[in-house]
Amino acid sequence: MLLIINEFLSKEELHYMQQQAKQALWEDGTKSAFGVAKNVKNNSQASLDSNNGLQLSNFLLSKMGNHPQFVSAVLPHRIFPPRVNRYEKDQQYGFHVDAAIMSIPGTQEVLRSDVSITVFLNEPQEYDGGELTIEGAFGTQQVKLKAGDAVVYPSASLHSVSTVTRGYRLAAISWIQSMIPDSNIREQLYHLDQSIQNLHQSDNHKSELNRLSNVYHNLIRHFAQL
Amino acid sequence: MLLIINEFLSKEELHYMQQQAKQALWEDGTKSAFGVAKNVKNNSQASLDSNNGLQLSNFLLSKMGNHPQFVSAVLPHRIFPPRVNRYEKDQQYGFHVDAAIMSIPGTQEVLRSDVSITVFLNEPQEYDGGELTIEGAFGTQQVKLKAGDAVVYPSASLHSVSTVTRGYRLAAISWIQSMIPDSNIREQLYHLDQSIQNLHQSDNHKSELNRLSNVYHNLIRHFAQL
Amino acid sequence: MLLIINEFLSKEELHYMQQQAKQALWEDGTKSAFGVAKNVKNNSQASLDSNNGLQLSNFLLSKMGNHPQFVSAVLPHRIFPPRVNRYEKDQQYGFHVDAAIMSIPGTQEVLRSDVSITVFLNEPQEYDGGELTIEGAFGTQQVKLKAGDAVVYPSASLHSVSTVTRGYRLAAISWIQSMIPDSNIREQLYHLDQSIQNLHQSDNHKSELNRLSNVYHNLIRHFAQL
Amino acid sequence: MLLIINEFLSKEELHYMQQQAKQALWEDGTKSAFGVAKNVKNNSQASLDSNNGLQLSNFLLSKMGNHPQFVSAVLPHRIFPPRVNRYEKDQQYGFHVDAAIMSIPGTQEVLRSDVSITVFLNEPQEYDGGELTIEGAFGTQQVKLKAGDAVVYPSASLHSVSTVTRGYRLAAISWIQSMIPDSNIREQLYHLDQSIQNLHQSDNHKSELNRLSNVYHNLIRHFAQL
Amino acid sequence: MLLIINEFLSKEELHYMQQQAKQALWEDGTKSAFGVAKNVKNNSQASLDSNNGLQLSNFLLSKMGNHPQFVSAVLPHRIFPPRVNRYEKDQQYGFHVDAAIMSIPGTQEVLRSDVSITVFLNEPQEYDGGELTIEGAFGTQQVKLKAGDAVVYPSASLHSVSTVTRGYRLAAISWIQSMIPDSNIREQLYHLDQSIQNLHQSDNHKSELNRLSNVYHNLIRHFAQL
Amino acid sequence: MLLIINEFLSKEELHYMQQQAKQALWEDGTKSAFGVAKNVKNNSQASLDSNNGLQLSNFLLSKMGNHPQFVSAVLPHRIFPPRVNRYEKDQQYGFHVDAAIMSIPGTQEVLRSDVSITVFLNEPQEYDGGELTIEGAFGTQQVKLKAGDAVVYPSASLHSVSTVTRGYRLAAISWIQSMIPDSNIREQLYHLDQSIQNLHQSDNHKSELNRLSNVYHNLIRHFAQL
Repeated sequence: MLLIINEFLSKEELHYMQQQAKQALWEDGTKSAFGVAKNVKNNSQASLDSNNGLQLSNFLLSKMGNHPQFVSAVLPHRIFPPRVNRYEKDQQYGFHVDAAIMSIPGTQEVLRSDVSITVFLNEPQEYDGGELTIEGAFGTQQVKLKAGDAVVYPSASLHSVSTVTRGYRLAAISWIQSMIPDSNIREQLYHLDQSIQNLHQSDNHKSELNRLSNVYHNLIRHFAQL
Repeated sequence: MLLIINEFLSKEELHYMQQQAKQALWEDGTKSAFGVAKNVKNNSQASLDSNNGLQLSNFLLSKMGNHPQFVSAVLPHRIFPPRVNRYEKDQQYGFHVDAAIMSIPGTQEVLRSDVSITVFLNEPQEYDGGELTIEGAFGTQQVKLKAGDAVVYPSASLHSVSTVTRGYRLAAISWIQSMIPDSNIREQLYHLDQSIQNLHQSDNHKSELNRLSNVYHNLIRHFAQL
Repeated sequence: MLLIINEFLSKEELHYMQQQAKQALWEDGTKSAFGVAKNVKNNSQASLDSNNGLQLSNFLLSKMGNHPQFVSAVLPHRIFPPRVNRYEKDQQYGFHVDAAIMSIPGTQEVLRSDVSITVFLNEPQEYDGGELTIEGAFGTQQVKLKAGDAVVYPSASLHSVSTVTRGYRLAAISWIQSMIPDSNIREQLYHLDQSIQNLHQSDNHKSELNRLSNVYHNLIRHFAQL
Repeated sequence: MLLIINEFLSKEELHYMQQQAKQALWEDGTKSAFGVAKNVKNNSQASLDSNNGLQLSNFLLSKMGNHPQFVSAVLPHRIFPPRVNRYEKDQQYGFHVDAAIMSIPGTQEVLRSDVSITVFLNEPQEYDGGELTIEGAFGTQQVKLKAGDAVVYPSASLHSVSTVTRGYRLAAISWIQSMIPDSNIREQLYHLDQSIQNLHQSDNHKSELNRLSNVYHNLIRHFAQL
Repeated sequence: MLLIINEFLSKEELHYMQQQAKQALWEDGTKSAFGVAKNVKNNSQASLDSNNGLQLSNFLLSKMGNHPQFVSAVLPHRIFPPRVNRYEKDQQYGFHVDAAIMSIPGTQEVLRSDVSITVFLNEPQEYDGGELTIEGAFGTQQVKLKAGDAVVYPSASLHSVSTVTRGYRLAAISWIQSMIPDSNIREQLYHLDQSIQNLHQSDNHKSELNRLSNVYHNLIRHFAQL
Repeated sequence: MLLIINEFLSKEELHYMQQQAKQALWEDGTKSAFGVAKNVKNNSQASLDSNNGLQLSNFLLSKMGNHPQFVSAVLPHRIFPPRVNRYEKDQQYGFHVDAAIMSIPGTQEVLRSDVSITVFLNEPQEYDGGELTIEGAFGTQQVKLKAGDAVVYPSASLHSVSTVTRGYRLAAISWIQSMIPDSNIREQLYHLDQSIQNLHQSDNHKSELNRLSNVYHNLIRHFAQL
């Protein structure tokens, strides 16, 4: 599922992140690329060794854990520490599939990348190029969103960031291991949960909502791998 | 899931079956028992070689395929030709688990028994004893229903028919292979379908009903083994 | 996976089908719609009771079983008899998900619809509107192909045919139960098979090709449900 | 599986727990309820911030890890810190399904609730009402056990504690994530293990016992999710 | 699992098959090879168009369905019509993996080859070479058995028949789709069934045997794909 | 899969381990045997309480995590701290299946033993007997390797170390939980990875290698349980 979340960040949150990013220490983006991806990556990223880089990462980590629609769609189990990256003019990230297994820096743990997220941190008018291009089950999709918007997509898809030809592009990225490994089941659970939320707001069919809610929890129980 | 369906048969259908049963040819019930079950079975059954026995069987077969609640709960893929059986005074069927794989008589096909059904064909006041006793995940349950009612239960459970001590007991039984092998998933699908039906009757949340209906079909598609 | 197969039909095959279609008997398309889909379907279809309709169906059935790329991508187990349908001006088919389980007409068998196919039978210039719109994991995709081209897509996706506003639209459709129920596995097997074919043509790494071919067969064996 | 374990606690262990409970600090039970359950819960629980509450919890944790029949039936992987709770006159816990995913307090870890346990800590004569009512696959079951007895049941079932109408009810509860997510497989493994234990005691078929023990370990290996 | 069944055929059955084989019509063995295997196969086989060839095939088909150890180990669902084949001096069958999916001749059905069987029909002293060599999970195994013995092995393994250097080699082969697709589960079920049989013969632990038998049937029910 | 890795240890690494082993503290090997295995184990092992024993263990742990062929074949997720053990004259380890679940010493964690490894630490000429005998899917295999070589085999197989009749046998052992629980899938992934490596070295079919590499990562993603 390719899901676009408008205003993932509020104006204030976006402003805070932009300020932190300005003061961050920038390092070569290939430091966090695995395998084949290393050869096609060409950008810079906020170092986690700098205070600001770490705060950006932790801020987004906590945001992801608390955003209802994101949680409903992704059912996150483990989240890779988010990184802010920056593509200057003539930089790009060629087509690649994200590595399936990633070591979480500074821990002994590994994570299976089920879902990728990109949060756009400056406005599309500020740069030319820099589209996130995703080749998925349903043909090619080009994504370039407003500052504060986010896109969530399968890590299994082939994707790229096309060359920036004017200005610079600022965005944050992360990878998530879902509690529900099967993407089809995860998508049906998302729809079931959203239906329950929507019926809840406008409705007094309480016993049916309880029943649907039990179905939802029992399906989560059936499929969750922790 | 142990599901009791009241008035599975209408008064007219019940009457028709009782009349046919009176004229049926009766044979030893062990003719259709497999393995260990043979030793503990003691009853008689309407022969499928007689016209009336065959008509009883086909009538119930068609009934099962068209009863909405039964279909929703069982999602039948293959149905063993139903048999009418009769326990006289002092007859019984000891505890047994139904064989997992059954040859369908008169064909080359086999069936996996996921679900069993018993349809009661005479009134509980007409006999003493004859309870269907099911030892399941949730302790022991005793079932003795009105004529025309039916009980649906997992073939995997240990069950028995206790000794008839007065009168006789008339009932029909069958085994069903479900499209959905996993009983937990089947149960959640049943609740989802029933919720959709109930919301449908009282409601105008059309887009949510479409969404829930798509979730239902896509879960069926994910799990159905045909 | 949404897969477009250019020139699925050769010029001769296309011509043959167009001629047969001209002489076919046309009936109301809702005759073959299930459940909710009935309300949103508005077209006509070639009756299978007519000679020409039946020949069209059998011709496509055989074509699907023998087209290497289609077989590699779909790994068909059961195919619903294809139907040719026709949308006149102002006709359309609203958004729907195909029913998960379909009875195969004239048989006792059922089929699980994993994959849908649409074969376009007249040229896109001959009509306005009539786009096949597929809402999938990757946003909305609009498909309108040359005569003889085909598109293969998941039956689980929400899709529609938009209103024809000029001319008429002629196409054939069918649904397929794959030997490989899981769509992600099926997609990886398709890529593996295509890689083997491509390496085969240009290469003499015979032992590696044998090894990859064994992996392919053993994965098919692991996942095929027959 | 609903399993009743008589004398889960010895007389001494029971006495110890009753003494600790007397000195515990009691807090509002809704502090540990999730989602919908919060609205229907009305009791008090021993605070884990008090020494006695923590000792009660740790004592039961260790007990669960070492009780052979409990381990055989549940095959625990993660155990939620047990809580002692207390229902005064007019208190109850309405029907609810336990949340599928629970955060383990004071850690970063989560747990999938597969199995629930209730250990009864005072005698049934000391209160009226307070039955644990479980609506499961096999109809409704009411459970009210002697002090020291325990009941183990699926967290997926709908259950409630009915209103206490005289005296008070003291019990401990916990939730367990099993190594074997599928409840049917877990039940078959339990029976296989119990058979091996029983044959072991009375028997000298050593080579068959070795063979059955290998089957047991290899099935555990096949299904355990750690 | 590689399983050798000594005296799969009785002396009489062996004699009967040898006599029929003498009168059979022989055809080129590549007629029944699929894909890559065609290039490495060099033998002849009894034609199913001849009376004797067909009788040989049907005789073995029925034998396989009724041999208790074979049924217990393989749990056959569909059996490819067995063929008798013959390797003359200098003939062989190079290393290959059997095709995963096979069309059953003369029907519309297909079969997934889970298990292969070779029944040896003449004595090992009558020829040099002709070993069945199986490269499996556990290294390479060479099999050359007495007339009437059989070997059962996974179709997924790489195997060959080495060149006959003196005399001729007569054997029958077939492929079987098991009710239990997963080979590890199938192997554990085989051991469980064999243990039950062995305990049965020497024992009076009736209640444990019933329990183990229920476990066996419920595991079959859980995994059988029909 | 039974996989022999020649020169798993380099000459220097082997020499280092032999030196450390000489100075290690030796304890009774039954200290680390579980259940039935305890009765048939008769050897000594380097204590992890001694400096040298611990260094041996950590050295091998790190070796296993970095050996490309081992990683490709096993895809390790958790590794039990390796132990060096020593069989003197007349010592042996009878047939046993390794316990499915093992507690990792000094931690709260458990591990599922999918794969076992034995690294031979002295030369086969230095002792008689001491063969590692593995009864697997493909009959019995006897393994006795050069110093520095290793054998990797399923923990589910029945295996033994036969009695040493001259000299002593020095080896290290460990158990590994794989990211890929299913051994058949793990074996196919191993072959796919090895093919990619081999094609990589001799080839310029870059786009096909990228495609195969994506298939590999997406299959890992589909099956990895972390």
